[in-house]
Amino acid sequence: MTNTALEKRSKISTQIDLDKDGVQHGHLIIPHSRNDSPWGSLLMPLSVFKNGEGPTVLLTGGNHGDEYEGPIALIKLIQSLEIDKVKGRVIILPALNYPAVKAGTRLSPLDGGNMNRSFPGDADGTITQMIADFVQRFILTRVDAVVDIHAGGKIMSFLPTAVIHNLPDPDHMERTLAAARAFGAPNCLVLEELDAAGMLDTAVEEMGKIFISTELGGGGSNRPETVRIAETGIHDVLVHLGILDEAPKGPGKTRFLGTPAEAFVIADKTGLFEFTAELGERVEKGHIVARIYDLDNPTAAPAEYRAPCDGIVIHRHLMGQINRGDCLAVMGQETDNFS
Amino acid sequence: MTNTALEKRSKISTQIDLDKDGVQHGHLIIPHSRNDSPWGSLLMPLSVFKNGEGPTVLLTGGNHGDEYEGPIALIKLIQSLEIDKVKGRVIILPALNYPAVKAGTRLSPLDGGNMNRSFPGDADGTITQMIADFVQRFILTRVDAVVDIHAGGKIMSFLPTAVIHNLPDPDHMERTLAAARAFGAPNCLVLEELDAAGMLDTAVEEMGKIFISTELGGGGSNRPETVRIAETGIHDVLVHLGILDEAPKGPGKTRFLGTPAEAFVIADKTGLFEFTAELGERVEKGHIVARIYDLDNPTAAPAEYRAPCDGIVIHRHLMGQINRGDCLAVMGQETDNFS
Amino acid sequence: MTNTALEKRSKISTQIDLDKDGVQHGHLIIPHSRNDSPWGSLLMPLSVFKNGEGPTVLLTGGNHGDEYEGPIALIKLIQSLEIDKVKGRVIILPALNYPAVKAGTRLSPLDGGNMNRSFPGDADGTITQMIADFVQRFILTRVDAVVDIHAGGKIMSFLPTAVIHNLPDPDHMERTLAAARAFGAPNCLVLEELDAAGMLDTAVEEMGKIFISTELGGGGSNRPETVRIAETGIHDVLVHLGILDEAPKGPGKTRFLGTPAEAFVIADKTGLFEFTAELGERVEKGHIVARIYDLDNPTAAPAEYRAPCDGIVIHRHLMGQINRGDCLAVMGQETDNFS
Amino acid sequence: MTNTALEKRSKISTQIDLDKDGVQHGHLIIPHSRNDSPWGSLLMPLSVFKNGEGPTVLLTGGNHGDEYEGPIALIKLIQSLEIDKVKGRVIILPALNYPAVKAGTRLSPLDGGNMNRSFPGDADGTITQMIADFVQRFILTRVDAVVDIHAGGKIMSFLPTAVIHNLPDPDHMERTLAAARAFGAPNCLVLEELDAAGMLDTAVEEMGKIFISTELGGGGSNRPETVRIAETGIHDVLVHLGILDEAPKGPGKTRFLGTPAEAFVIADKTGLFEFTAELGERVEKGHIVARIYDLDNPTAAPAEYRAPCDGIVIHRHLMGQINRGDCLAVMGQETDNFS
Amino acid sequence: MTNTALEKRSKISTQIDLDKDGVQHGHLIIPHSRNDSPWGSLLMPLSVFKNGEGPTVLLTGGNHGDEYEGPIALIKLIQSLEIDKVKGRVIILPALNYPAVKAGTRLSPLDGGNMNRSFPGDADGTITQMIADFVQRFILTRVDAVVDIHAGGKIMSFLPTAVIHNLPDPDHMERTLAAARAFGAPNCLVLEELDAAGMLDTAVEEMGKIFISTELGGGGSNRPETVRIAETGIHDVLVHLGILDEAPKGPGKTRFLGTPAEAFVIADKTGLFEFTAELGERVEKGHIVARIYDLDNPTAAPAEYRAPCDGIVIHRHLMGQINRGDCLAVMGQETDNFS
Amino acid sequence: MTNTALEKRSKISTQIDLDKDGVQHGHLIIPHSRNDSPWGSLLMPLSVFKNGEGPTVLLTGGNHGDEYEGPIALIKLIQSLEIDKVKGRVIILPALNYPAVKAGTRLSPLDGGNMNRSFPGDADGTITQMIADFVQRFILTRVDAVVDIHAGGKIMSFLPTAVIHNLPDPDHMERTLAAARAFGAPNCLVLEELDAAGMLDTAVEEMGKIFISTELGGGGSNRPETVRIAETGIHDVLVHLGILDEAPKGPGKTRFLGTPAEAFVIADKTGLFEFTAELGERVEKGHIVARIYDLDNPTAAPAEYRAPCDGIVIHRHLMGQINRGDCLAVMGQETDNFS
Repeated sequence: MTNTALEKRSKISTQIDLDKDGVQHGHLIIPHSRNDSPWGSLLMPLSVFKNGEGPTVLLTGGNHGDEYEGPIALIKLIQSLEIDKVKGRVIILPALNYPAVKAGTRLSPLDGGNMNRSFPGDADGTITQMIADFVQRFILTRVDAVVDIHAGGKIMSFLPTAVIHNLPDPDHMERTLAAARAFGAPNCLVLEELDAAGMLDTAVEEMGKIFISTELGGGGSNRPETVRIAETGIHDVLVHLGILDEAPKGPGKTRFLGTPAEAFVIADKTGLFEFTAELGERVEKGHIVARIYDLDNPTAAPAEYRAPCDGIVIHRHLMGQINRGDCLAVMGQETDNFS
Repeated sequence: MTNTALEKRSKISTQIDLDKDGVQHGHLIIPHSRNDSPWGSLLMPLSVFKNGEGPTVLLTGGNHGDEYEGPIALIKLIQSLEIDKVKGRVIILPALNYPAVKAGTRLSPLDGGNMNRSFPGDADGTITQMIADFVQRFILTRVDAVVDIHAGGKIMSFLPTAVIHNLPDPDHMERTLAAARAFGAPNCLVLEELDAAGMLDTAVEEMGKIFISTELGGGGSNRPETVRIAETGIHDVLVHLGILDEAPKGPGKTRFLGTPAEAFVIADKTGLFEFTAELGERVEKGHIVARIYDLDNPTAAPAEYRAPCDGIVIHRHLMGQINRGDCLAVMGQETDNFS
Repeated sequence: MTNTALEKRSKISTQIDLDKDGVQHGHLIIPHSRNDSPWGSLLMPLSVFKNGEGPTVLLTGGNHGDEYEGPIALIKLIQSLEIDKVKGRVIILPALNYPAVKAGTRLSPLDGGNMNRSFPGDADGTITQMIADFVQRFILTRVDAVVDIHAGGKIMSFLPTAVIHNLPDPDHMERTLAAARAFGAPNCLVLEELDAAGMLDTAVEEMGKIFISTELGGGGSNRPETVRIAETGIHDVLVHLGILDEAPKGPGKTRFLGTPAEAFVIADKTGLFEFTAELGERVEKGHIVARIYDLDNPTAAPAEYRAPCDGIVIHRHLMGQINRGDCLAVMGQETDNFS
Repeated sequence: MTNTALEKRSKISTQIDLDKDGVQHGHLIIPHSRNDSPWGSLLMPLSVFKNGEGPTVLLTGGNHGDEYEGPIALIKLIQSLEIDKVKGRVIILPALNYPAVKAGTRLSPLDGGNMNRSFPGDADGTITQMIADFVQRFILTRVDAVVDIHAGGKIMSFLPTAVIHNLPDPDHMERTLAAARAFGAPNCLVLEELDAAGMLDTAVEEMGKIFISTELGGGGSNRPETVRIAETGIHDVLVHLGILDEAPKGPGKTRFLGTPAEAFVIADKTGLFEFTAELGERVEKGHIVARIYDLDNPTAAPAEYRAPCDGIVIHRHLMGQINRGDCLAVMGQETDNFS
Repeated sequence: MTNTALEKRSKISTQIDLDKDGVQHGHLIIPHSRNDSPWGSLLMPLSVFKNGEGPTVLLTGGNHGDEYEGPIALIKLIQSLEIDKVKGRVIILPALNYPAVKAGTRLSPLDGGNMNRSFPGDADGTITQMIADFVQRFILTRVDAVVDIHAGGKIMSFLPTAVIHNLPDPDHMERTLAAARAFGAPNCLVLEELDAAGMLDTAVEEMGKIFISTELGGGGSNRPETVRIAETGIHDVLVHLGILDEAPKGPGKTRFLGTPAEAFVIADKTGLFEFTAELGERVEKGHIVARIYDLDNPTAAPAEYRAPCDGIVIHRHLMGQINRGDCLAVMGQETDNFS
Repeated sequence: MTNTALEKRSKISTQIDLDKDGVQHGHLIIPHSRNDSPWGSLLMPLSVFKNGEGPTVLLTGGNHGDEYEGPIALIKLIQSLEIDKVKGRVIILPALNYPAVKAGTRLSPLDGGNMNRSFPGDADGTITQMIADFVQRFILTRVDAVVDIHAGGKIMSFLPTAVIHNLPDPDHMERTLAAARAFGAPNCLVLEELDAAGMLDTAVEEMGKIFISTELGGGGSNRPETVRIAETGIHDVLVHLGILDEAPKGPGKTRFLGTPAEAFVIADKTGLFEFTAELGERVEKGHIVARIYDLDNPTAAPAEYRAPCDGIVIHRHLMGQINRGDCLAVMGQETDNFS
């Protein structure tokens, strides 16, 4: 890849020319010297479908390595996308934090890196930072929109939902909302992000480009429904952006949700975790949503956690054990602002 | 505890007298010398409710350490059971493989022991074997029935079901079936166990006593529905056995299921795992239930796995990654034999 | 907490208002995403006692996680300090390197961080660096004096002593000496620090504020005497500073010690370690203070280590094994300069 | 070594002939195949001093690998014992659990083995069991008395004391008491062992031979006083047995102590550990000897632990953290029975 | 597989019928419950070529998991062997210690098991013992000869050689020698095994059957020459036994070697290892074959190790570091006894 | 060491004065606080031979910790170099990445640091970076030439060769070529480095000084031939530079080689690795040099890897297992440009 304008070389290379027409399947080649692979490298999958002029979209899965709807839906897309129907360019990274996806862990096993707090990255940094830097400088600069498929991972679960941010620029917000409506998930959460530094979301939004994320189920698993939401949503965003010349598949109408400031419930005990509501259940403020028991003192009354506001349970800690400081539930509230 | 008739001493002791009337909460004291606890011991919870003459039941959770309906339902029972309504004896071990429950792992972190393949145990063996031996010699000898609450653990998920074995002795089978009907789970699987050696089930059944197990959901989690099935089922078995003087809580009728010999589908690839059916879904033989993708070769066709017979999907591998040799699905078939 | 003047936000937050009157017990909330706690946080204890105008003191324990006099004395102070007797403000961090204290290790298990070489910290750095940054920017800026309780940790042991630095500014030195005399430990070491970069000491002293440290015993343990020295010393410094309206508890007179440049004895062998003097013993130059044996060559003569100067043995390596490069003893010499 | 009468071969060999006159320094050669040492072996030090007819004594250190008075005193003896003054035989194993001593851990890092619960051993078992078997069959059969030097290890500390068991056979008891008096430690504990199975003590006592153990200090350290007690005690037992033709070195009179059944205090909390008595202090029943604090709830009252009887504090948990189930203190009571 | 006569069931099963004519490729299915594969199993490759009556040979590689000539030569044979040319039966286990071969380690990563010290195995034991038991009872009972391909592994290196034992029964020895001559390696070592218990060799030889082993190079590697020796040798043994109807490929004459009792040189230092001879070099007694340096004392004279007898260097420690107790070289001597 | 001109202090110190005449053996003292060595330090060997005026050469081994010709040849030189024959200065660091050499690993076990990608280092960084910084600022500034002895490490193997870079400055190139010819290895590779950032090579070459590296064999081993090449080459470079007043030892003529851009063959499969050429063999483009087999599918055709150009095999992956992304072979081509 020739990028004559770039001041700093990445150690990552690829045999793919991002700007060439046609279908290319290849890798990012990431040098990685280990004791048992002195001259080793990581080969991280990258596919590009380009057909003439038109918008460019980046599709990513595996931003966290234990979230599977993204990698599966994107591998299926790699196998089914017909270049003749494409107008513009589709760049697919089915495993954005490749070492984490290989390990099945949220964070990279190589450097502990959380890819979604690593942007804009560092060309001389850890593997996670090197990938973020490459994406930031060589890919994001080429795209008009990004769809980044997340789920709850092994520990948490979400009501299936698209996620966008409440953007200050009205035009930016409107373009993003239109894409989110096209995505067509059952729910769409419009977030005020508290800790946005380092996110892929932030990197894209700061360039004024469209960014759609999702939270589709969880438990480190996948179900026909959650994979279908990812596949349909991606397809219909491609159609919406004019990149794919097909009819949209999605039928449904999206319910828009917001989260009030107090919506996050935090555990202050470590112990056995009983969740006493169902995801998607509408509960009133004060309703007990969870209890934490101390196995070593089975006669002690459990700690009880209550809904901090009226609303819908949109997120829960999934595991039967919980650590002090973990988020155990999040409440959402319907909003008409974006419908 | 005085057990003058026992030929071999266990290193495990307890301050509880299993044969005394009243409510006792205490521990099995299991000596465990470690580098950082030279004279350390494990204190594994044990509760006994005894009120006069009557049958004895043993209730166990945490046979595998990442299955939570048992520990939670039994701690709730420890906090709510009224001794005045008991006639006979209820022995509760909410964390049968205590080190595994503390670690949140299927197997004991201390010795890798699978408690459910460790019976009849060994008084001079590992911690897991010492616990099995104590239960075998000092508790099972005292009981008339055992209810052992399992779920799918972190990796697998089950349609909520009670589980019993197809026992050769008709009277034994009838007593077991009556208890299973009283338990009242939505489903009851009647198994021909292939690998029964070492199971708690086997230890109890070989004594001609009633044994009810369950598989309630999975994912290392718990939901209101699965905890309720455990709580109601335990309650109604206590009522059924005449130990608890209350009305049964359970409404429902149980659907009985069997598993044909070919019902277990095994993965022969390692890779990204897509499950294409829903738990409880009725599928025909040949229906694709799962696919395995190779992330490193995203253009390669996935391995496809098909239902080996008509039936209901009663078990699935849950994680989005699977290992060669893993069981990826089990089919069940309705039977009228036991209704 | 509102800090409008601060240019850079910390990711650490707290429900405590450092500037509000009254007693507040709460936490620093430190975000910490892990594979098993994706949205997890660490809740590090913080207590503030404020009553009107007056000086502010910061009291810290657990700067190193295997030194226990600080955490214990400060928890006891949290439970006993009466706000009515306070004039000014007492800020208490009983576990400055909270992850290390939880693990019982000198360094943080999360990032290997030595808290006492991490100042002024980094808001975007590791957990250890984030804590240092928060203390540096939000707490040290508010205080007049810091008392930081150390001991020898699991590996080393000290003659119980307060520690201050020989400061270039006479007024600064005099204020510090006065506080050290008030602390009233049996000994007070006046150090020329060789490797001061990154220390909490340095961070405080560079602001011209009072800093008192201690080395109280060791072995990762605590004794009534060492806890009493910490409790009494802290109490009497509060009285001395005019923050606590009580009579001083400490009776004793402090012996001032210095360490000559050659006072540190380093092992150049790895092996079994015999210490041949007692802590506090007065020895002459050339006296054998330790021997190192090679277990694999039991007939080989041991390496012998001798006192490099006349003086008192104020520090020893405690463990029966020693590594090449370890400090095995430090000598102190009485001085009249500060009495 | 030729042992024609032995039915089973040990995999352990040695270049030393245990029955030959003279001084021999060598090793037990223990085969140990590892991934990085396929044909590797462990060379565990063994020294034998034999001079004509007379009794045989076995001297052992490092039964637990983090107790150092034994290895140090015995290496010093290996370097200083003059064969001309010996009459009979002295066999020295300064590191009985050699892998544990090398690692500085109580238990063997190779197999987790507690040497003092591994007798009579197993020639086909783990490394720990192989060593125990060799000692049991090839060494204990040759000896008249054993002195086994223990201390408190890294986690615990003891008032320096010799330890013997209250033996049922009066002659056996009298021979043992005479040797203990000759050893001349400041204290001698006469124990009723609760968990004697597998101990070296038991293996020797069952042969009707003299067995003297010790508990000298602790903390994984050593001090001049504790090494001196070990050296003097060993020397004077050798004199007492008629093996060494020198004058006894020990001056002192031994105080005999017993432990009542209730003397062991067990922690039922995990947390920060404050010990509120001194080793050797005489306290009354009900005196608070320790408190356990919860760092995460610094305002919660600590758990308090009280002396279960009048007596002397002879053992304490040393570390500033303690685990539920740990022994935190042991009381001893003076007795005139053996003086 | 139906084995009605066998008293004890193995937990290992296979879809292959060892006694059926034709070519079958399949697995031993070894149940292996792990935390991340609760119902998991290991699928260990097994191929059987059977064509009518005739002798049966078992070919094994991967007895140690870091020795590669066996697995590679046997996979090549699996892909090339023509059933029409077979008369009798060829059973191939290319990875006898399958978990070790997958991990690339000498010993099994699952249980530390050395397969070649695990025979006759244990049906209820560890994975390594279960495999040994299955081979012992279900395969060795069917065979006439075994060829087991070893090499030096990652740590050691050998002059390429076949290995047989000096068998007491002359007819057994003659059949074995004939097969070894047919194998046609450049060298053939005739060993008196010192530590034969548990070896596959012993298991086969005790049944009076032919057993040929090899040591082909080392370093955890393979070269064209060493793979060719394995392939040619296996081929020609099949021809020699009348199982394969082809011409022998091997040209060469084998040099027979013995090892005198003193031929094994053991390191008594740990350090940097310089080997000063070449494999296959003829040296005289006293010639320096290796030196060990202490990096931490570079001016100290190295330990020197000399040839214990005249002869040929047939084995060396390969790595540049060596551990005390390792075998650093073995000498062989030519013999005319078997030519 | 006094370095008044240096703006930033290193935490590393040494008792050696680099500028003093005579022979000095000592250490770099690198502070390294660990949980078990709170005030610990690493003592990294350093020797200096200085005799009057003349050039300075730095000799380094152990840049990667599993390459042994350097440490061994340099320790031998330390023991044999006669100061009287020296004119100028020889600085020897036999273990440049000291922690890696102690561990026998390519990278530092303390921080994962690859020393040869860590220059110019960081005085406040990790141990590896601190060493690089010290060498960069305090040693490289004093030298005229550097000889850095590498080999293939545990995983790879090279045809024994010296290595230099094709330098843009003709005079610099000629001085370097002259030194390489003096070194006299059988081969000399003239490289265009692709990834030169951070190398010791680059640090030296950017100062316009002579830099000679080597790749001598591999496998984490050493042979008489490879040690001899290192010893002779170093000796003769010292003579060539006028530092050593002896006759050159080397007889031989060096063959110069280049590597075309396509010469590096990368594995795209993980599996069993068969290498089908010999190091040093001359092969034609398209010749199969390696195959990768899938043990779990032994009947599947192996992946085949072919020579990308005519030439000599100068490097191979050595281990019998290979990872996707590893370099499996490198081809070299003879060149007359430098002879």
